[in-house]
Amino acid sequence: MLKDSVRTGSYRSAIVNNAHLFKGKTVLDVGCGTGILSMFAAKAGASHVVGIDMSNIIDQAQKIIEANNFKDTITLVKGKLEEADLPIKQFDIIISEWMGYFLLYESMLDTVLLARDKYLKPNGHIFPDSAAMYIAAIEDQDYKEEKINFWDNVYGFDFSCIKDIALREPLVDTVDLKSVVTDPCMIKHIDLTTARKEDLSFEAPFTLTATRNDYVHAFLAWFDISFECTHKKVKFSTGPHAQYTHWKQTVFYTPSTITVSEGESITGRLTCAPNERNNRDLDISISYKTPRDHEATMQYKMY
Amino acid sequence: MLKDSVRTGSYRSAIVNNAHLFKGKTVLDVGCGTGILSMFAAKAGASHVVGIDMSNIIDQAQKIIEANNFKDTITLVKGKLEEADLPIKQFDIIISEWMGYFLLYESMLDTVLLARDKYLKPNGHIFPDSAAMYIAAIEDQDYKEEKINFWDNVYGFDFSCIKDIALREPLVDTVDLKSVVTDPCMIKHIDLTTARKEDLSFEAPFTLTATRNDYVHAFLAWFDISFECTHKKVKFSTGPHAQYTHWKQTVFYTPSTITVSEGESITGRLTCAPNERNNRDLDISISYKTPRDHEATMQYKMY
Repeated sequence: MLKDSVRTGSYRSAIVNNAHLFKGKTVLDVGCGTGILSMFAAKAGASHVVGIDMSNIIDQAQKIIEANNFKDTITLVKGKLEEADLPIKQFDIIISEWMGYFLLYESMLDTVLLARDKYLKPNGHIFPDSAAMYIAAIEDQDYKEEKINFWDNVYGFDFSCIKDIALREPLVDTVDLKSVVTDPCMIKHIDLTTARKEDLSFEAPFTLTATRNDYVHAFLAWFDISFECTHKKVKFSTGPHAQYTHWKQTVFYTPSTITVSEGESITGRLTCAPNERNNRDLDISISYKTPRDHEATMQYKMY
Repeated sequence: MLKDSVRTGSYRSAIVNNAHLFKGKTVLDVGCGTGILSMFAAKAGASHVVGIDMSNIIDQAQKIIEANNFKDTITLVKGKLEEADLPIKQFDIIISEWMGYFLLYESMLDTVLLARDKYLKPNGHIFPDSAAMYIAAIEDQDYKEEKINFWDNVYGFDFSCIKDIALREPLVDTVDLKSVVTDPCMIKHIDLTTARKEDLSFEAPFTLTATRNDYVHAFLAWFDISFECTHKKVKFSTGPHAQYTHWKQTVFYTPSTITVSEGESITGRLTCAPNERNNRDLDISISYKTPRDHEATMQYKMY
């Protein structure tokens, strides 16, 4: 993750270039991992940083902050935020890299919102404080052939029961911008200063207008992140038009091919909610109507 | 895995092209997964095939064998071979795709050997029946810089404690043949018809003779598989000279760079054993002496 330069570079810009926000302030780093964001905050002049993580990686983080002489400025806590007894009870700033694939898959956002409600001072800042999700439709014949239709004939055998499973599993992969055949449509905006946990289950309508005559084999989703509270707004996108990130994009194959002509629209609704049994998993459903009035609903599972 | 055409194609050649070995015979498929090898055996004329797997994938395998009309020829059993009550007690042939990274990492070979001792008729066949492991030394400056030395300076911070961990973790990746700077050396041969579980812990000497003047940054390991009992011996290699497989090769970085001139040798010993706490993990140690008489020992962990 540290090697994702878009990700880590954006956090560095947002934190280190905004020392006026950090100077003398207390900072909570939710899910601190190796401690890189905590060290950015310390470098930006924070009076004290508390990093919390339930993973064993925090043992390495402790060695790292000592090797970099931040032992007095950064305190690391191993455990769950929900249960932890933090050495500081109110913070000026919360920083966190909580985003998962499709923004919300295995995401820590609910923990960040909890941290905000419990530990952030009124008018405190959250880094980042804004996230938006988008979808578009893509032409993807060759890859769909390889990923989905492959199962129709595996060395002469019928593996179509696996095809059904493969179709319902969103695929995390990079997609060429030239595969995108419609305008993008924003399906969700999350303002981290006000969002509630319930907002992470949502239903959103979309209209995708074709920019050329082509065939559609899948919907494509991605997200943008921004640090609205920074002086020169730092933002990055994980879309097909932007530089590679480890989040790539998320592909939802449709059961059949959709024909679109320039100017025509695919309309529909996307619903997304944590799975009831395992709340790190996501149940996503996409209902859509094609320009030729074909209607379909697909249930996807990110497990 | 099914998409690895070297792997699946080799098994198909070995089984389907050797119908004279399978016709009217009973076959046990150890770790049958989706059932592809069981279906190859059925297609080759086996009188009955029993496939066993402890994973839930076997529920899909049942649908697949029914969709392909092998319900009467193939019986699937969900469970551990050690505990299972199989419908046939003695088999003419055992087939299995048990190989892991570095051949033995997370491998099922011990289960295959157990199956042989318990269920294989005298003079029965095992597909495959031979495996060999090789090492060579490689020039890998650029990649070592990115994978290992990266940790010396992460956005201006010292992450060298992670570097130590990264160095001890063998890297599974494809390596260009032109990076190989020595002749290969076989470090282990496994004859599946006679091997015992104890043979999977081993110590092997090696001598790697440089084929040109260059620098060495890592040792490289791979394995070859062969079906010795087939008419026209089917074999495949996972080495850097061969076609891509999902096993790729395994890279063991050395703590310092070794200088070699054409004709000079690096000598050493490799030891390999299952980890005592988790026997699917591997502890690997490589001791070596360079042409300039520098000696070193590195402990690696495949976890």
